[in-house]
Amino acid sequence: MPIDLQSDEHFMKQALREAVQAADAGEVPVGAVVVCEGRIIARAHNYTERLNDVTAHAEMQAVTAAADFIGGKYLNRCTLFVTLEPCMMCAGALHWAQLGKLVFGAYDEKKGYSLWEKNLLHPRTSVKGGVCAEESAALLRAFFAERRKE
Amino acid sequence: MPIDLQSDEHFMKQALREAVQAADAGEVPVGAVVVCEGRIIARAHNYTERLNDVTAHAEMQAVTAAADFIGGKYLNRCTLFVTLEPCMMCAGALHWAQLGKLVFGAYDEKKGYSLWEKNLLHPRTSVKGGVCAEESAALLRAFFAERRKE
Repeated sequence: MPIDLQSDEHFMKQALREAVQAADAGEVPVGAVVVCEGRIIARAHNYTERLNDVTAHAEMQAVTAAADFIGGKYLNRCTLFVTLEPCMMCAGALHWAQLGKLVFGAYDEKKGYSLWEKNLLHPRTSVKGGVCAEESAALLRAFFAERRKE
Repeated sequence: MPIDLQSDEHFMKQALREAVQAADAGEVPVGAVVVCEGRIIARAHNYTERLNDVTAHAEMQAVTAAADFIGGKYLNRCTLFVTLEPCMMCAGALHWAQLGKLVFGAYDEKKGYSLWEKNLLHPRTSVKGGVCAEESAALLRAFFAERRKE
Protein backbone atom coordinates (compact mmCIF):
# COMPACT_ATOMS: atom_id res chain seq x y z
CA MET A 1 0.00 0.00 0.00
CA PRO A 2 1.49 3.39 -0.91
CA ILE A 3 2.29 5.78 1.94
CA ASP A 4 -0.17 8.65 2.25
CA LEU A 5 2.08 11.62 2.93
CA GLN A 6 -0.81 13.68 4.24
CA SER A 7 -2.23 11.11 6.65
CA ASP A 8 -2.27 11.54 10.41
CA GLU A 9 -0.25 8.33 10.66
CA HIS A 10 2.48 9.70 8.43
CA PHE A 11 2.89 12.87 10.49
CA MET A 12 2.68 10.91 13.74
CA LYS A 13 5.53 8.73 12.51
CA GLN A 14 7.58 11.89 12.11
CA ALA A 15 6.72 12.80 15.70
CA LEU A 16 7.74 9.28 16.74
CA ARG A 17 11.12 9.82 15.11
CA GLU A 18 11.52 12.84 17.35
CA ALA A 19 10.55 10.73 20.36
CA VAL A 20 13.25 8.20 19.48
CA GLN A 21 15.78 11.03 19.42
CA ALA A 22 14.64 12.02 22.91
CA ALA A 23 15.08 8.46 24.17
CA ASP A 24 18.54 8.24 22.62
CA ALA A 25 19.48 11.34 24.62
CA GLY A 26 18.15 9.90 27.89
CA GLU A 27 14.94 11.94 27.82
CA VAL A 28 11.42 10.61 28.36
CA PRO A 29 10.54 9.82 24.74
CA VAL A 30 7.95 12.30 23.57
CA GLY A 31 8.13 13.95 20.16
CA ALA A 32 6.07 16.45 18.21
CA VAL A 33 5.70 18.06 14.81
CA VAL A 34 3.57 21.00 13.71
CA VAL A 35 1.96 20.87 10.29
CA CYS A 36 0.63 23.87 8.41
CA GLU A 37 -0.93 23.56 4.96
CA GLY A 38 0.40 20.03 4.56
CA ARG A 39 3.97 20.92 5.49
CA ILE A 40 5.96 20.27 8.65
CA ILE A 41 6.99 23.68 9.98
CA ALA A 42 8.38 22.63 13.37
CA ARG A 43 9.87 19.52 14.98
CA ALA A 44 10.70 19.07 18.64
CA HIS A 45 11.24 16.53 21.35
CA ASN A 46 11.42 16.52 25.10
CA TYR A 47 14.47 18.36 26.38
CA THR A 48 13.74 18.68 30.10
CA GLU A 49 16.76 16.74 31.39
CA ARG A 50 19.38 18.31 29.19
CA LEU A 51 18.08 21.83 29.82
CA ASN A 52 17.22 21.19 33.47
CA ASP A 53 13.92 22.82 32.65
CA VAL A 54 10.47 21.42 33.35
CA THR A 55 8.97 23.71 30.71
CA ALA A 56 10.95 22.10 27.87
CA HIS A 57 8.28 19.58 26.86
CA ALA A 58 8.12 18.70 23.18
CA GLU A 59 4.82 20.56 22.72
CA MET A 60 6.08 23.79 24.30
CA GLN A 61 9.09 23.88 22.03
CA ALA A 62 6.97 22.97 19.02
CA VAL A 63 4.59 25.87 19.75
CA THR A 64 7.51 28.29 20.13
CA ALA A 65 9.20 27.06 16.94
CA ALA A 66 6.00 27.06 14.87
CA ALA A 67 5.09 30.60 15.97
CA ASP A 68 8.60 31.70 15.10
CA PHE A 69 8.25 30.15 11.64
CA ILE A 70 4.85 31.74 11.04
CA GLY A 71 5.84 35.09 12.51
CA GLY A 72 2.71 35.21 14.68
CA LYS A 73 1.52 33.81 17.97
CA TYR A 74 -1.59 31.98 16.78
CA LEU A 75 -1.57 28.46 15.40
CA ASN A 76 -5.21 28.29 14.37
CA ARG A 77 -4.25 26.98 10.91
CA CYS A 78 -1.87 24.38 12.32
CA THR A 79 -2.08 20.79 13.51
CA LEU A 80 0.15 19.60 16.33
CA PHE A 81 1.06 15.92 16.23
CA VAL A 82 2.45 14.71 19.54
CA THR A 83 3.21 11.13 20.56
CA LEU A 84 1.75 11.43 24.08
CA GLU A 85 -1.36 13.19 25.32
CA PRO A 86 -0.37 16.70 26.48
CA CYS A 87 -0.23 17.59 30.18
CA MET A 88 -2.11 20.59 31.53
CA MET A 89 0.85 22.94 31.05
CA CYS A 90 1.05 22.05 27.38
CA ALA A 91 -2.74 22.08 26.99
CA GLY A 92 -2.63 25.61 28.44
CA ALA A 93 -0.04 26.65 25.87
CA LEU A 94 -2.14 25.12 23.08
CA HIS A 95 -5.14 27.03 24.42
CA TRP A 96 -3.29 30.35 24.28
CA ALA A 97 -2.02 29.49 20.79
CA GLN A 98 -5.60 28.79 19.63
CA LEU A 99 -4.35 25.61 17.98
CA GLY A 100 -6.43 24.43 15.01
CA LYS A 101 -6.11 20.69 15.59
CA LEU A 102 -4.42 18.41 18.07
CA VAL A 103 -3.54 14.83 17.13
CA PHE A 104 -1.94 12.76 19.85
CA GLY A 105 -0.69 9.19 20.25
CA ALA A 106 -0.91 7.38 23.56
CA TYR A 107 -3.27 8.57 26.28
CA ASP A 108 -1.49 9.64 29.48
CA GLU A 109 -3.50 8.10 32.27
CA LYS A 110 -1.68 9.99 35.00
CA LYS A 111 -0.95 13.45 33.63
CA GLY A 112 -3.07 13.81 30.50
CA TYR A 113 -5.13 16.97 30.12
CA SER A 114 -8.29 14.96 29.41
CA LEU A 115 -8.32 13.87 33.06
CA TRP A 116 -9.67 17.34 33.87
CA GLU A 117 -13.38 17.84 33.88
CA LYS A 118 -13.40 21.03 31.87
CA ASN A 119 -11.85 21.22 28.42
CA LEU A 120 -8.44 22.82 28.87
CA LEU A 121 -7.95 23.38 25.15
CA HIS A 122 -9.30 26.28 23.13
CA PRO A 123 -12.97 25.68 22.24
CA ARG A 124 -12.10 25.82 18.52
CA THR A 125 -9.35 23.17 18.71
CA SER A 126 -10.39 19.83 17.26
CA VAL A 127 -8.85 16.71 18.74
CA LYS A 128 -7.99 13.18 17.69
CA GLY A 129 -6.33 10.84 20.19
CA GLY A 130 -4.86 7.35 19.87
CA VAL A 131 -3.01 7.71 16.54
CA CYS A 132 -0.09 5.20 16.50
CA ALA A 133 -0.75 4.91 20.22
CA GLU A 134 0.83 1.49 20.55
CA GLU A 135 4.12 2.60 19.01
CA SER A 136 4.26 5.58 21.33
CA ALA A 137 3.39 3.54 24.41
CA ALA A 138 5.97 0.89 23.49
CA LEU A 139 8.69 3.55 23.30
CA LEU A 140 7.74 4.87 26.73
CA ARG A 141 7.56 1.37 28.24
CA ALA A 142 10.98 0.44 26.88
CA PHE A 143 12.46 3.69 28.18
CA PHE A 144 11.16 3.24 31.73
CA ALA A 145 12.03 -0.48 31.79
CA GLU A 146 15.60 0.41 30.87
CA ARG A 147 15.70 3.13 33.49
CA ARG A 148 14.55 0.78 36.24
CA LYS A 149 17.48 -1.51 35.46
CA GLU A 150 19.99 1.28 36.06
CA MET B 1 8.39 52.36 59.10
CA PRO B 2 11.57 50.64 57.90
CA ILE B 3 11.33 48.45 54.84
CA ASP B 4 11.41 44.74 55.60
CA LEU B 5 13.63 43.36 52.88
CA GLN B 6 12.37 39.83 53.47
CA SER B 7 8.66 40.60 53.39
CA ASP B 8 6.29 39.33 50.72
CA GLU B 9 5.45 42.96 49.94
CA HIS B 10 9.08 43.82 49.27
CA PHE B 11 9.55 40.97 46.83
CA MET B 12 6.19 41.68 45.20
CA LYS B 13 7.32 45.25 44.61
CA GLN B 14 10.29 43.84 42.74
CA ALA B 15 7.90 41.78 40.63
CA LEU B 16 5.84 44.95 40.06
CA ARG B 17 8.96 46.69 38.74
CA GLU B 18 9.22 43.89 36.21
CA ALA B 19 5.56 44.37 35.30
CA VAL B 20 6.20 48.08 34.65
CA GLN B 21 9.02 47.11 32.30
CA ALA B 22 6.59 44.87 30.44
CA ALA B 23 4.07 47.72 30.12
CA ASP B 24 6.77 50.08 28.86
CA ALA B 25 7.51 47.55 26.12
CA GLY B 26 3.85 47.24 25.11
CA GLU B 27 3.33 43.93 26.85
CA VAL B 28 0.49 43.03 29.20
CA PRO B 29 2.10 44.08 32.50
CA VAL B 30 2.88 40.96 34.48
CA GLY B 31 6.17 40.52 36.33
CA ALA B 32 7.77 37.86 38.49
CA VAL B 33 10.76 37.16 40.69
CA VAL B 34 11.97 33.91 42.20
CA VAL B 35 13.42 33.97 45.70
CA CYS B 36 15.62 31.26 47.18
CA GLU B 37 17.01 31.53 50.71
CA GLY B 38 16.10 35.21 50.91
CA ARG B 39 17.74 36.13 47.64
CA ILE B 40 16.25 36.96 44.24
CA ILE B 41 17.66 34.40 41.81
CA ALA B 42 15.50 35.19 38.77
CA ARG B 43 13.52 38.11 37.37
CA ALA B 44 11.20 38.06 34.39
CA HIS B 45 8.30 39.78 32.75
CA ASN B 46 5.82 38.97 30.06
CA TYR B 47 7.47 38.77 26.63
CA THR B 48 4.71 37.25 24.50
CA GLU B 49 4.35 40.11 22.02
CA ARG B 50 8.01 40.71 21.36
CA LEU B 51 8.78 37.02 20.99
CA ASN B 52 5.50 36.22 19.19
CA ASP B 53 5.25 33.35 21.63
CA VAL B 54 2.28 32.53 23.83
CA THR B 55 4.53 30.48 26.13
CA ALA B 56 6.63 33.52 27.12
CA HIS B 57 4.63 34.40 30.24
CA ALA B 58 6.60 35.93 33.12
CA GLU B 59 6.23 32.79 35.24
CA MET B 60 7.49 30.44 32.52
CA GLN B 61 10.60 32.47 32.01
CA ALA B 62 11.11 32.82 35.76
CA VAL B 63 10.93 29.03 36.18
CA THR B 64 13.43 28.49 33.36
CA ALA B 65 15.82 31.15 34.70
CA ALA B 66 15.60 29.95 38.31
CA ALA B 67 16.25 26.34 37.33
CA ASP B 68 19.19 27.49 35.27
CA PHE B 69 20.58 29.40 38.27
CA ILE B 70 20.10 26.45 40.62
CA GLY B 71 21.35 23.88 38.16
CA GLY B 72 18.36 21.61 38.75
CA LYS B 73 14.77 21.36 37.62
CA TYR B 74 13.04 21.48 40.98
CA LEU B 75 12.13 24.69 42.77
CA ASN B 76 10.90 23.15 46.02
CA ARG B 77 13.06 25.55 48.04
CA CYS B 78 11.94 28.61 46.09
CA THR B 79 9.13 31.13 46.26
CA LEU B 80 7.72 32.62 43.07
CA PHE B 81 6.29 36.12 43.37
CA VAL B 82 4.11 37.06 40.44
CA THR B 83 1.92 40.13 40.07
CA LEU B 84 -1.06 38.28 38.58
CA GLU B 85 -2.56 34.92 39.42
CA PRO B 86 -1.00 32.31 37.10
CA CYS B 87 -2.97 30.78 34.24
CA MET B 88 -3.29 27.01 33.88
CA MET B 89 -0.23 26.75 31.63
CA CYS B 90 1.92 28.47 34.23
CA ALA B 91 0.29 26.54 37.08
CA GLY B 92 1.19 23.37 35.17
CA ALA B 93 4.81 24.49 34.93
CA LEU B 94 4.85 25.32 38.66
CA HIS B 95 3.42 21.85 39.33
CA TRP B 96 6.19 20.16 37.37
CA ALA B 97 8.78 22.34 39.12
CA GLN B 98 7.37 21.30 42.52
CA LEU B 99 7.47 24.95 43.56
CA GLY B 100 7.82 25.51 47.32
CA LYS B 101 5.61 28.59 47.59
CA LEU B 102 3.58 30.77 45.27
CA VAL B 103 2.77 34.38 46.17
CA PHE B 104 0.65 36.27 43.69
CA GLY B 105 -0.87 39.73 43.43
CA ALA B 106 -4.20 40.31 41.71
CA TYR B 107 -6.62 37.45 41.14
CA ASP B 108 -7.34 36.75 37.48
CA GLU B 109 -11.08 36.28 37.27
CA LYS B 110 -11.01 35.03 33.68
CA LYS B 111 -7.88 32.92 33.33
CA GLY B 112 -6.62 32.26 36.86
CA TYR B 113 -5.73 28.69 37.78
CA SER B 114 -7.94 28.84 40.90
CA LEU B 115 -11.02 28.85 38.66
CA TRP B 116 -10.43 25.11 38.20
CA GLU B 117 -12.05 22.74 40.61
CA LYS B 118 -9.00 20.60 41.26
CA ASN B 119 -5.76 22.09 42.53
CA LEU B 120 -3.51 22.48 39.50
CA LEU B 121 -0.43 23.17 41.60
CA HIS B 122 1.79 20.57 43.22
CA PRO B 123 0.23 19.34 46.48
CA ARG B 124 3.27 20.56 48.43
CA THR B 125 3.14 24.13 47.06
CA SER B 126 1.85 26.65 49.59
CA VAL B 127 -0.02 29.67 48.24
CA LYS B 128 -0.73 33.25 49.21
CA GLY B 129 -2.84 35.44 46.92
CA GLY B 130 -3.70 39.14 46.97
CA VAL B 131 -0.30 40.63 47.91
CA CYS B 132 -0.11 44.21 46.54
CA ALA B 133 -3.15 43.21 44.50
CA GLU B 134 -4.37 46.77 44.00
CA GLU B 135 -1.06 47.97 42.53
CA SER B 136 -0.99 45.03 40.16
CA ALA B 137 -4.61 45.51 39.11
CA ALA B 138 -4.08 49.26 38.61
CA LEU B 139 -1.17 48.56 36.24
CA LEU B 140 -3.30 46.16 34.22
CA ARG B 141 -6.27 48.55 34.11
CA ALA B 142 -4.08 51.44 32.94
CA PHE B 143 -2.52 49.25 30.26
CA PHE B 144 -5.83 48.10 28.81
CA ALA B 145 -7.40 51.58 29.06
CA GLU B 146 -4.48 52.95 27.04
CA ARG B 147 -4.78 50.16 24.52
CA ARG B 148 -8.47 50.79 23.95
CA LYS B 149 -7.65 54.39 23.02
CA GLU B 150 -5.32 53.29 20.22
